Amino acid sequence: MKGRGDEEGFGFKEVRVLKTGGRVGRLKAGGHFVDTPVFMPVGTKGSVKALDSADLDEAGAEIVLANTYHLHLRPGEEEVGKLGGIHKFMNWRGVVLTDSGGFQASSLSMGTSGNRQGGLARITDDGVEFKSFWDGSKHFIGPEKAIEIQAKLGADIIMAFDECTPNRGDDYAKEAMARTHRWLVRGKSRWLELRKENACVGALFGIIQGGRSRELRRESARFVVEQGLPGIAIGGESIGSDPDQTAEVISWVYDLLPKDRPLYTMGVGVRPSDLVRVIEAGADMFDCVAPTRLARTGLLYFPGEKGERINIGKSVFRLDKREIFPGCDCYTCTKGYSRGYLHHLYKCGELSYFRLASIHNLRVMIRTVREYANK
Amino acid sequence: MKGRGDEEGFGFKEVRVLKTGGRVGRLKAGGHFVDTPVFMPVGTKGSVKALDSADLDEAGAEIVLANTYHLHLRPGEEEVGKLGGIHKFMNWRGVVLTDSGGFQASSLSMGTSGNRQGGLARITDDGVEFKSFWDGSKHFIGPEKAIEIQAKLGADIIMAFDECTPNRGDDYAKEAMARTHRWLVRGKSRWLELRKENACVGALFGIIQGGRSRELRRESARFVVEQGLPGIAIGGESIGSDPDQTAEVISWVYDLLPKDRPLYTMGVGVRPSDLVRVIEAGADMFDCVAPTRLARTGLLYFPGEKGERINIGKSVFRLDKREIFPGCDCYTCTKGYSRGYLHHLYKCGELSYFRLASIHNLRVMIRTVREYANK
Repeated sequence: MKGRGDEEGFGFKEVRVLKTGGRVGRLKAGGHFVDTPVFMPVGTKGSVKALDSADLDEAGAEIVLANTYHLHLRPGEEEVGKLGGIHKFMNWRGVVLTDSGGFQASSLSMGTSGNRQGGLARITDDGVEFKSFWDGSKHFIGPEKAIEIQAKLGADIIMAFDECTPNRGDDYAKEAMARTHRWLVRGKSRWLELRKENACVGALFGIIQGGRSRELRRESARFVVEQGLPGIAIGGESIGSDPDQTAEVISWVYDLLPKDRPLYTMGVGVRPSDLVRVIEAGADMFDCVAPTRLARTGLLYFPGEKGERINIGKSVFRLDKREIFPGCDCYTCTKGYSRGYLHHLYKCGELSYFRLASIHNLRVMIRTVREYANK
Repeated sequence: MKGRGDEEGFGFKEVRVLKTGGRVGRLKAGGHFVDTPVFMPVGTKGSVKALDSADLDEAGAEIVLANTYHLHLRPGEEEVGKLGGIHKFMNWRGVVLTDSGGFQASSLSMGTSGNRQGGLARITDDGVEFKSFWDGSKHFIGPEKAIEIQAKLGADIIMAFDECTPNRGDDYAKEAMARTHRWLVRGKSRWLELRKENACVGALFGIIQGGRSRELRRESARFVVEQGLPGIAIGGESIGSDPDQTAEVISWVYDLLPKDRPLYTMGVGVRPSDLVRVIEAGADMFDCVAPTRLARTGLLYFPGEKGERINIGKSVFRLDKREIFPGCDCYTCTKGYSRGYLHHLYKCGELSYFRLASIHNLRVMIRTVREYANK
């Protein structure tokens, strides 16, 4: 690895630029080398829903997300630390990236007005005060605390605490961006302190905000890049939910980004083609709960079909002996589980359905990325 | 195989008598040889809850149960047939035994009086009328129909339609036993017809009833043995739920049973030691939903502990790095899933918990049987 940050166990290198857009890279984190672009499944509470580590391995996952906000509430970062850290806790030998909890805190704070008032959390310059959804107990996460929690969890890649900005270009978007920048400086400072004490503290990524404004996004990109952190992320309300807007935001800031840093677009994608869209635009890393969440509601990825998915609950699949998607190399499709059987399991609410369906959707996303990169 | 019934693809042979009680045998069914005694996991609706075929293989399962009553209601035996039969449907290459639905029908018929009046089903000499718990539609299963459904499902071992008798020795127990005998004759007759048309129809087991009366149980055993069927089962309300009563019922009839037929006690066992108790008494086959059902409520088998289990939901396990049961050879215990992590998954209601917990409980039951037989 000749990328920067190698001395701290983290590095990134651009390997080649793809003719169809985007690039292939190589990431080093937590002692592992990972080819990028890379789709990262989400294990919010320390478990990718319905799956275990071997399922993730089998599907080709290399980096798994976990969430600071959720793990702070339960079981608590101290507890995860006492159980050997996030890797041992989850029994996952690959790379772990923790989101900072900024997105969850911002979502909770969203009042009915659409501004950040009247919600279940309160955002101030200090950080975010919120109540636990488990028991109503009061909690606080600020930029320093978010880093401390992630360091205790022991993730390989950690995220700066940010305010997820609404998809607008108004004064509020500007205010939220400025606050995110102030938080980034404070978070970085705490991160540097912790790294002095313990070199194993994860590599910190800064997050570009700025809502729906090209000007704000460029201002934010310049600010984040100046911090010289190991990785750069793009966040915000529309990132992930709208791949075209995500690609547009990348295009606004792309010329400002250093080539030797991975670019992580947070929350992409809902459909397999969303991944292709953001890779073309220049993203190296992305995560989304959609593959497993959709699977649980009966929606199974089927490239070429309308919406790129079928609804296994439909009666047309009742007597269908075929695998979910012809030629799919996932465990569920190759081991002999038919659409008819999955339809039955889904209709009966059988627990085995959730796992078999999630495995398929996850594998399609991971394969889509690999196939694009190998073209 | 020198046991009877070999010509029809089914056979049983007593291999050796154990000094500690019970025997080791060898069963042939559905093209497979299975060592007995054997614990059979229950996949009521065509899926052992939370597990897939590979999980069952890994846990050492060789025979899986499915239920006639449930599969008749959904997806329907015709549908299972069109999807290639119960094995292909469930994607299970081992042996499949189907229960006849008599137990479910009898349970539904149980009114508040404790007699068979006022329940959700009506038992007559013809069979049982009942309503679907899915949509309220009316259904009927009688002794002939139960055999026809099981033949269409394509199970390797099928059960005669019986009335699961209350744990009493009164006139009602006698009446239910007599009805079960009349149903057995009718079911056998339909079975013989179907076997002429198709030699692959599963091996039929008759069921001894007679409630809590030694006299009735012996009368029932004589009657069932006289039918000369491939296997013999013992059913009834207390069988399974009370291992001591089950062992006592076996002792009442044991001298009447032919040595070249497997003895199946239906619904055993709730605890690992229940299995030892009935093996000592002479049982060769047994099934129970308890291992997977208990697992889902947080109760994990732990031989030596009170009740032979621990409650993983207890806070004492919050920071426990150890595997569920020290030395356990199950997937969950050997692959690195700690009590602390399972506690967390259980408290969060994560789907992965149900599978990891069920695998452990199932493996403990299967290992308990193998260890006893190998002593």
